[in-house]
Amino acid sequence: MATVPERFTGLIGQSVRAIDTPALVVDLDAMEQNLQRMARFVRERGLRLRPHAKMHKSAELARLQIAHGAVGVCVQKVGEALALARAGIGDILITNEVIAPAKLRRLAEAARELPTHFGLAVDSAEGLDAVIAAVERAGLPGQGTLDVLVEIDVGQGRCGVAPGAAAVPLAQRIATAPGLRWAGLQAYHGGAQHRRSPDERREAIAAAAAAVHQTRDALTAAGLPPPAVTGAGTGSFLHEAVSGLWTELQAGSYLFMDADYARNAPDDPGALGLTHGFDLTFDHALYLQAQVISRSPDRAVIDAGHKSHALDSGPPVVAHPAGLRWSNGGDEHGVLHGDADPGSLPALGEPVWLIPGHCDPTVNLHDWLIGVRGGVPDGHVERLIHVNARGAVD
Amino acid sequence: MATVPERFTGLIGQSVRAIDTPALVVDLDAMEQNLQRMARFVRERGLRLRPHAKMHKSAELARLQIAHGAVGVCVQKVGEALALARAGIGDILITNEVIAPAKLRRLAEAARELPTHFGLAVDSAEGLDAVIAAVERAGLPGQGTLDVLVEIDVGQGRCGVAPGAAAVPLAQRIATAPGLRWAGLQAYHGGAQHRRSPDERREAIAAAAAAVHQTRDALTAAGLPPPAVTGAGTGSFLHEAVSGLWTELQAGSYLFMDADYARNAPDDPGALGLTHGFDLTFDHALYLQAQVISRSPDRAVIDAGHKSHALDSGPPVVAHPAGLRWSNGGDEHGVLHGDADPGSLPALGEPVWLIPGHCDPTVNLHDWLIGVRGGVPDGHVERLIHVNARGAVD
Repeated sequence: MATVPERFTGLIGQSVRAIDTPALVVDLDAMEQNLQRMARFVRERGLRLRPHAKMHKSAELARLQIAHGAVGVCVQKVGEALALARAGIGDILITNEVIAPAKLRRLAEAARELPTHFGLAVDSAEGLDAVIAAVERAGLPGQGTLDVLVEIDVGQGRCGVAPGAAAVPLAQRIATAPGLRWAGLQAYHGGAQHRRSPDERREAIAAAAAAVHQTRDALTAAGLPPPAVTGAGTGSFLHEAVSGLWTELQAGSYLFMDADYARNAPDDPGALGLTHGFDLTFDHALYLQAQVISRSPDRAVIDAGHKSHALDSGPPVVAHPAGLRWSNGGDEHGVLHGDADPGSLPALGEPVWLIPGHCDPTVNLHDWLIGVRGGVPDGHVERLIHVNARGAVD
Repeated sequence: MATVPERFTGLIGQSVRAIDTPALVVDLDAMEQNLQRMARFVRERGLRLRPHAKMHKSAELARLQIAHGAVGVCVQKVGEALALARAGIGDILITNEVIAPAKLRRLAEAARELPTHFGLAVDSAEGLDAVIAAVERAGLPGQGTLDVLVEIDVGQGRCGVAPGAAAVPLAQRIATAPGLRWAGLQAYHGGAQHRRSPDERREAIAAAAAAVHQTRDALTAAGLPPPAVTGAGTGSFLHEAVSGLWTELQAGSYLFMDADYARNAPDDPGALGLTHGFDLTFDHALYLQAQVISRSPDRAVIDAGHKSHALDSGPPVVAHPAGLRWSNGGDEHGVLHGDADPGSLPALGEPVWLIPGHCDPTVNLHDWLIGVRGGVPDGHVERLIHVNARGAVD
């Protein structure tokens, strides 16, 4: 078990206001509601949910998702996969290419020695050669298998082969290589998650669906229909879900949400033909708790800057007290302004809660999440959640 | 001793190309040259150097700076101070306000129990009350002292009392409180570091100097002349140095540099009256090493995104291979473009070295730095450097 740092010991049962700052606080009530809403949706739609654990990097939260019906989790890196597997997660897909022989050795050895079932993506013959070599060297054939998916570029312009026939020779090689299992297509459009209007997201995922369709047809014609098509994120998953092409959703941020996702105009489930009355509103469940360490008549300076919350997807929002404007104070400070009412600025020593701009890289800055019952600012600490794969960029 | 992760074991003596990616690589030759250039400058100018260790967060690098004449180091947080003190650093100034009683207790107890000499800044009567209470409770008076500085706002609009008379009652209280030592003024203008032209930086530091002058006069008139005036960063330190007001410089980034500091037009030491022929060119010494994990005709995708290097101060620069343009590929990817010559794109599996946009928050994403002799791409690994205070935001 990871050691709880001194500053977080003895917190269980205490008021949220007693938390040493800066600290990431999870509103457990909001998180559980998000968990249940997504679980009901995929269950009733007959879809598999494999949430992306790159967001929370926590075995405890992965277990909670699996207990609510998820088939396993996704990660981006071998290091994340190993951290979660060693903490007992049984089904982990690396939705990314792995090229380095040393990384593939670590993965293949883990697949041999741990009870976890692993998968990964490929998008090149050389990359697949490296996977096959590592699997053989680890003696995996006969002792287990590794799922291998072909990633296709469905519009993001990052990794993946071109849609269509390019996937076929890779799938043929996967299907015949000892120790590998032909697992299907990785088809994720990251850019579509953050397009602000439902129409823009619909168009992006329609193009992605055309790419999946074309590739699935080419594979089926070659006798290798993809057993799964996996992808979709929190911003666009309704569109993938209604397409009839994706069999598995990878949304991860729905659990916590963030200020950037809140800037998306929501989809209308009815307009997508979802008439079952699903409530797919996901509430903010992640807060950065900070403390005012300096006050002037026109500003309150808090003890948290971008070493405590990521800025890559825009600024955080001040959740409590309400009505304050945030400005960047550097690595370790934020500056709060009460433009309309300077009297609303919190006093020296008072706690403040921010909604981070982007949950994934924010969680990666912290080793522990503080689970709170009853929300902020009035709840109490229920449990500490370890971020097992914090910093596992390898 | 911190445990070296498996992926970095056995690296000593190996080629830099053997490093498991992503990894932060320090060019030791460049770093040592930066160290020596700054050391010579402060020595010949009769200034004290107290480099800001918020940048490297490493006891080994702090020791190296002290061995080259630094009087100690600065940090921003109690957590950083404790991590470095426990690793043997003997003189640590927290250039920031600390309000929380639990943090002040940890600091005061460390000041009692460790041989390290600590200091911190205050900018309010309530904050100073909290410091005095913690020092009394820890029984520090008689067993040691804590340096306390008054921070003044010299133009950044963040923490600090207004210049002039506001510092006097705080200094009076510090000077008479048992266990505290009146240590002088904290006067740092963070915003001035990143103004691009020497003229803009000269103007900003001239205004800061006027604020220091006014405050020093008020304190001197009250019989409490500041024993030290400490501040200045890598972007502006020449201006503070020639002002005759600052006695101690806090520059930290000079050791590694980054892409953002490289965007500053350099100062002309001669124009500032520095006629001794100082070479104050600081070279890039910090690289993020990544690997190409996906190739298309028009792009190379690397295995490092903003979970490996901070984006708060702008994009990274591709140092090697030269001539490539970087674009954001998300948390765990970067996309390289060979606009003029796609043939210059590195092959699948090849290493790539980026100069991070901002060194401080980039280092904070990593637990280890890989010290390389002979530079990139052809040097070899000489030693591993632990980032003792990684994540110590408290």
